[in-house]
Amino acid sequence: MSGNSFGTIFRITTFGESHGVGLGVVIDGCPAGIKIDEAFIQSELDRRRVGQSKVTSRRDEPDKVEILSGVFEGVATGAPICLIIRNKDADSSKYNNLKEVFRPGHADMTYQKKYGIRDHRGGGRSSGRETAARVAAGAIAKMVLGNEISIHAWTDSIKDIHCSTIDLEEVEKNIVRAADPIAAKKMEECILAARKNNNSVGGVVKIRVKNAPIGLGEPVFDKLDADLAKALMSIGSVKGVEIGGGFALTKMFGSESNDAVSKETGEFASNNSGGILGGISSGEMIEISIAVKPTPSIIQEQTTKNIHGKIVPITIEGRHDPCICPRIVPVAEAMVAITLADHLLRNRASKI
Amino acid sequence: MSGNSFGTIFRITTFGESHGVGLGVVIDGCPAGIKIDEAFIQSELDRRRVGQSKVTSRRDEPDKVEILSGVFEGVATGAPICLIIRNKDADSSKYNNLKEVFRPGHADMTYQKKYGIRDHRGGGRSSGRETAARVAAGAIAKMVLGNEISIHAWTDSIKDIHCSTIDLEEVEKNIVRAADPIAAKKMEECILAARKNNNSVGGVVKIRVKNAPIGLGEPVFDKLDADLAKALMSIGSVKGVEIGGGFALTKMFGSESNDAVSKETGEFASNNSGGILGGISSGEMIEISIAVKPTPSIIQEQTTKNIHGKIVPITIEGRHDPCICPRIVPVAEAMVAITLADHLLRNRASKI
Amino acid sequence: MSGNSFGTIFRITTFGESHGVGLGVVIDGCPAGIKIDEAFIQSELDRRRVGQSKVTSRRDEPDKVEILSGVFEGVATGAPICLIIRNKDADSSKYNNLKEVFRPGHADMTYQKKYGIRDHRGGGRSSGRETAARVAAGAIAKMVLGNEISIHAWTDSIKDIHCSTIDLEEVEKNIVRAADPIAAKKMEECILAARKNNNSVGGVVKIRVKNAPIGLGEPVFDKLDADLAKALMSIGSVKGVEIGGGFALTKMFGSESNDAVSKETGEFASNNSGGILGGISSGEMIEISIAVKPTPSIIQEQTTKNIHGKIVPITIEGRHDPCICPRIVPVAEAMVAITLADHLLRNRASKI
Amino acid sequence: MSGNSFGTIFRITTFGESHGVGLGVVIDGCPAGIKIDEAFIQSELDRRRVGQSKVTSRRDEPDKVEILSGVFEGVATGAPICLIIRNKDADSSKYNNLKEVFRPGHADMTYQKKYGIRDHRGGGRSSGRETAARVAAGAIAKMVLGNEISIHAWTDSIKDIHCSTIDLEEVEKNIVRAADPIAAKKMEECILAARKNNNSVGGVVKIRVKNAPIGLGEPVFDKLDADLAKALMSIGSVKGVEIGGGFALTKMFGSESNDAVSKETGEFASNNSGGILGGISSGEMIEISIAVKPTPSIIQEQTTKNIHGKIVPITIEGRHDPCICPRIVPVAEAMVAITLADHLLRNRASKI
Repeated sequence: MSGNSFGTIFRITTFGESHGVGLGVVIDGCPAGIKIDEAFIQSELDRRRVGQSKVTSRRDEPDKVEILSGVFEGVATGAPICLIIRNKDADSSKYNNLKEVFRPGHADMTYQKKYGIRDHRGGGRSSGRETAARVAAGAIAKMVLGNEISIHAWTDSIKDIHCSTIDLEEVEKNIVRAADPIAAKKMEECILAARKNNNSVGGVVKIRVKNAPIGLGEPVFDKLDADLAKALMSIGSVKGVEIGGGFALTKMFGSESNDAVSKETGEFASNNSGGILGGISSGEMIEISIAVKPTPSIIQEQTTKNIHGKIVPITIEGRHDPCICPRIVPVAEAMVAITLADHLLRNRASKI
Repeated sequence: MSGNSFGTIFRITTFGESHGVGLGVVIDGCPAGIKIDEAFIQSELDRRRVGQSKVTSRRDEPDKVEILSGVFEGVATGAPICLIIRNKDADSSKYNNLKEVFRPGHADMTYQKKYGIRDHRGGGRSSGRETAARVAAGAIAKMVLGNEISIHAWTDSIKDIHCSTIDLEEVEKNIVRAADPIAAKKMEECILAARKNNNSVGGVVKIRVKNAPIGLGEPVFDKLDADLAKALMSIGSVKGVEIGGGFALTKMFGSESNDAVSKETGEFASNNSGGILGGISSGEMIEISIAVKPTPSIIQEQTTKNIHGKIVPITIEGRHDPCICPRIVPVAEAMVAITLADHLLRNRASKI
Repeated sequence: MSGNSFGTIFRITTFGESHGVGLGVVIDGCPAGIKIDEAFIQSELDRRRVGQSKVTSRRDEPDKVEILSGVFEGVATGAPICLIIRNKDADSSKYNNLKEVFRPGHADMTYQKKYGIRDHRGGGRSSGRETAARVAAGAIAKMVLGNEISIHAWTDSIKDIHCSTIDLEEVEKNIVRAADPIAAKKMEECILAARKNNNSVGGVVKIRVKNAPIGLGEPVFDKLDADLAKALMSIGSVKGVEIGGGFALTKMFGSESNDAVSKETGEFASNNSGGILGGISSGEMIEISIAVKPTPSIIQEQTTKNIHGKIVPITIEGRHDPCICPRIVPVAEAMVAITLADHLLRNRASKI
Repeated sequence: MSGNSFGTIFRITTFGESHGVGLGVVIDGCPAGIKIDEAFIQSELDRRRVGQSKVTSRRDEPDKVEILSGVFEGVATGAPICLIIRNKDADSSKYNNLKEVFRPGHADMTYQKKYGIRDHRGGGRSSGRETAARVAAGAIAKMVLGNEISIHAWTDSIKDIHCSTIDLEEVEKNIVRAADPIAAKKMEECILAARKNNNSVGGVVKIRVKNAPIGLGEPVFDKLDADLAKALMSIGSVKGVEIGGGFALTKMFGSESNDAVSKETGEFASNNSGGILGGISSGEMIEISIAVKPTPSIIQEQTTKNIHGKIVPITIEGRHDPCICPRIVPVAEAMVAITLADHLLRNRASKI
């Protein structure tokens, strides 16, 4: 009800603030018997954490996970799994001047108006740091899905630079997490140039799911694509979601957008549906694109309002990502994994 | 859990099939004291129903609503409101040959695999006819929101034809529901040409909400934009959702995508945020775009599979919309209204 | 959220009022493939309906069920099943004088204060008539549970008259639904004497479930006994619930209340646990008792308040049950069936 | 869905095991602006914790609470509040011999069958130690309810010893938490005698709520009494719940059980309704009784089965309460507070 939970059977609840004690998540509904690989949770967190490279924020957080409950001798017991990550490098001093000022493009104003109170330090609850908890939960979700089902995200474009080839093996080899090593180099330059100019850039992140079983998703409101759209749109900075052909389908005829079955092989010649028909996975590859806006925190003077309604200049300090796409990649994977794990379990009750 | 409900406090549950007894919806959580205007519910249904014009399906359904409960002397009592709409012109004979064949681009195959059984007549539960129940519920939601908050959708593009001007007064005056009368004429021609060629087209529908109060939306997962994305992506044929600037923001610098406050007026010069910051309404106009794919039912031979896995030709009969955008307009408004009404009530519990 | 739904995966939502158009229920989450026996739904409704005998109300309602959705060729499709029952013998004239007066022991005052508006005719939404919808849903739940699991309720006591023997075959053979034919006769006399004196009586209804599988119920808050307690306490007039030994256990030593395993047979010598250990079904018989208060509607002058806060005399007319226990029997069975069906489906997600 | 959450708007999720890292709770939906008094949370935990007196377990746990999130400068921000309590005196060695044996009256067997795996140490998740998390959450709920609404529980009987007088001031002055100092002395002797005989005893705990506002509770399924029954029955060892007159009402005539209004004062002469009419609080005192069974852990040889289905003798070691009533008192208060806080917030959406 208060928006901190996601999922129904496989249900996660995150908590924590950017500059408080730490972040955490309770994962309720992980089936008993799943092996819980703590090292894998940590490795997923390591992919998301700050300070990885020259295109990310310089805040230095080890993001070390602690398992508080729900695991006995390395196996999920069916009890809720609580994972916590303590903040180590929170430097609130940079935010003292922001106590009464609303940062442009951030949640500062809306939180203040909604709640009448706000933890202004680093965005508090609205900080991107909250996604660490999602990534930890996503690691558990991936264990529920098993090795057969694979989820891969990558940076597909930064500004006008697009991947020309999609080689998923390349993604973790470059710091922007692009699927094309040549485009990756140009993207890196683009991001560093933006940082140098005290500016930021955005891009498109794509996600592919292979081997999702047929039948995931519930009709009508909890369609798989509807739940994926919500899952991904709930990530800060995401302003658009496309399934399969997305907006490009609006330019086609029905005879083009319907995925044709080859008379010879019975295979589909295209995947405009993005692996989802009528809200239910079809067995084809699930394909999703998300629009990631440029980081709103930029180190140049802007105009804004303060809590008294006065128009004031603002210059943001602190340590920010000049482009959030590389770090959105593991978060997007996590949200997709959580959504699929939930629907996998929900699907168990569909039939007699 | 089975996907037929939407919302939390203002919660709707729809039921019914395209060629069964009828459609219906239970609206639970409508606050007591709201005046229920039955004529308005009917007028909203009339906007969505088939047979309105030469660009929609020729099935003739009066879509007459019956109020079964929850209203006493014209006022909501706080008890659940059940609305039903009986099917009158269901002609299942056109679907006899589809009993064992999966229509391309439809939910036939996925329902069959998920449930092991399928009401094949007109798509059964997966039919667009289900949206009549949503529109009826949306009418109640609009009564909850009151006259101050206005929600308007329109067809913004069909294939490559875009509205050049946005005049909301024009929308109900043309049969494609475009906001630009000149573009409307071209869109109409485009749709009729597609129908003549036994084909179909898609387009983009846009939605604007004026005067939504600040503070709607919950942080983290139930962000207003996340819930709107789910609400709209849950409409059949919708394959993409953008909030505010959407995918266009991925081409901008942060200094461009942040909505700048005028030093003089304190007004925002742009609305890239689409009226939502950190998942919470900011008081600016809420702006959303959705991608509507071409109707998958086209009256030309296609190749598909049947329930035995055999590759077979298929020619779909029946009465279909050559373009679904004009009828998506009231459905999209309904889903936005339901989402906002829910968050309006949820917001009552935010503060002491 | 507004209290008209029960269950999670197998989830029912009831609607309707005593003197409105009718009653109904949406059952969402019935697994596809379940055979839906309409005659059985009707026979369950017939057990609950008024006018069955001289110990029930004289209102004459056929309670004929109509299936609106979710069933195709006699089988559940996985889509929501909507059942409606239209009111036929609603006589609101008897309630005209109650428009501004609160009946003692009824929900009149609390509804008025909570909602600021009230359908006063026959209690409106708070009427026992709402349980018709529960019984219809319970019939579906019994189909989900299958023939193996049996649920039987009976009137175990009326005032000080208790069943001395428990013969479930006897229950439907006498009009008080007692499990002991000799006690049944005395109970009938007791009820008729109360009616003659314009009074009413209460009693204890017991429920037994045989062959419930081990493992139903979730730990901590959604314990099977907790959900059963809620399910049964949600029936109007029920003021107490006991599982197994109930309050009698408070007089025992632990060495007595622990159900001892026979060293020879391995069978339990007692069933103080009522078939539930740690909130989870143990495979033993589930045993529950509920306290049913005397019908609050009595045809003798009482003192009450009206909506203006004035103390006024009240004499209730209308057609009421002098004892509600016989008609609570099928309602209690329905609520237990719904609770078990839900937990049966929930349990599918417990393990890897 | 997995039973570790309770409430809807004010929603708690507990986690943790008896002999794991610790216990905790996430409280989601605490309205922003509530002052969070950490010392009060601790004092409530101190009332529940072990080692308080000679009638409780000798395990020594400080039960020190840590606030991880949701509180900024002593005030709730609207973000989820996570509280954790680390285990300090977990001695699992006493449970080594129970790894394959099911303790009578405990959840050992049912957990093993349900999940196929079990943390056997001290009952793991099924331990009464989980209630520490509830008490911490209950302290927050009490802050939401404010000082006006008071909730008091006490031990009303142990075996056949009943309180003759109800003096709430006495409750915290005696180690059994009875409301009658003379009965308290006898109860203490009764419990100590049971312990001396390696046995245990049970009793009845009563709860009173003063000044609950009119209108709490939702009609039909989420009646206030139904939710209270669930809340209290979800506490391990509770086997019965009565609202107001409870089972005693089954012996009365309607003319007796209806609470009569005095013609002179307009006051009710009795409170058989227990302050709840039609599932909604009436403004009268809320009165509830719960049946607490004797502690199932007794230090005398019993017969049971092991995980291989073999009949075996069992002698339980470990540190157990000879009577759990004194420690149920704060837990019952917590569950009532949580239920009321939730309904208080839910009620905000009832009316226009």
